[in-house]
Amino acid sequence: MKLSVVAFPSKKLQDLANTYRKRYDSHYTKITPYITIKEAFEVDESQIEDISHKIKSIANKYGPLKIHASKISSFFPTTNVIYFKIELTEQLQNIHDELYREINIGNPKHVFIPHITIARDLTATEHDDIFPQLRMIGINEKEEIDRIHLIYQLEDGSWTTYETYKLTGEM
Amino acid sequence: MKLSVVAFPSKKLQDLANTYRKRYDSHYTKITPYITIKEAFEVDESQIEDISHKIKSIANKYGPLKIHASKISSFFPTTNVIYFKIELTEQLQNIHDELYREINIGNPKHVFIPHITIARDLTATEHDDIFPQLRMIGINEKEEIDRIHLIYQLEDGSWTTYETYKLTGEM
Repeated sequence: MKLSVVAFPSKKLQDLANTYRKRYDSHYTKITPYITIKEAFEVDESQIEDISHKIKSIANKYGPLKIHASKISSFFPTTNVIYFKIELTEQLQNIHDELYREINIGNPKHVFIPHITIARDLTATEHDDIFPQLRMIGINEKEEIDRIHLIYQLEDGSWTTYETYKLTGEM
Repeated sequence: MKLSVVAFPSKKLQDLANTYRKRYDSHYTKITPYITIKEAFEVDESQIEDISHKIKSIANKYGPLKIHASKISSFFPTTNVIYFKIELTEQLQNIHDELYREINIGNPKHVFIPHITIARDLTATEHDDIFPQLRMIGINEKEEIDRIHLIYQLEDGSWTTYETYKLTGEM
């Protein structure tokens, strides 16, 4: 069973991301807009409750995530993914690191660059057409996200929420 | 903001429902397979925490939902919706009624017929072609669902989970 830990931004920010995703993101129909905190990892279904307990303990330590979507960036040339860049804070880095440390399954494949994907699976030409426009439109939204979600993937690639965890701590 | 209360069946049952939904359900990409416990209702965003508290109290009273998907039925001629019929139990009826009573917004539009939709927005001809086949294939799955979800709808019609509630009681 494939799991991941994500934070869903406000409805307002999800709606905004979807105006782009609808046209440019091949995963648009698989999940609503999200910030990945721990990338997808594979576990046996029997482990999910244990993992859920670990996430709950972590969520109890951290307060609401302070998010600043500050600009539209691209992972080009690594991939043709275009995204709302979320400014990396100590808080985001810490909760990310702690999730990887406590759920000791699947190491980070990349440096943590928090983001909301708005375009993917573009051809190089599409990317070069679209990215300059989007970068110019830009984004500047600040908000607090007071919960994180453990999600699991179905066979068709879509994701269902297993559990939500309120961020009720001080860190 | 449009809210609804649903129960997601096991991954296995969701995967099975999706094999049909992929072809026949116009809402396939908007949400993973679900059982509606309280139909969509409109509230101001400021009310969501209050509603969430009410659902939490109810979830604390009920135990895991005993589900039996017993056959494939249709709401024809009322609508052309085809679904996995979930046998109505006292437990399901009670939690449904209590949700409507406590969250006093939006009355039931229909008698409560618990189900997982697998086809909708079919033409009459499509319905008449497909339904006899599906009815013959049928379904017979029993399981327990140990949590319910409060979900909200985005502008594009897709749904995000706001919170999950474990069914930790005895009823």
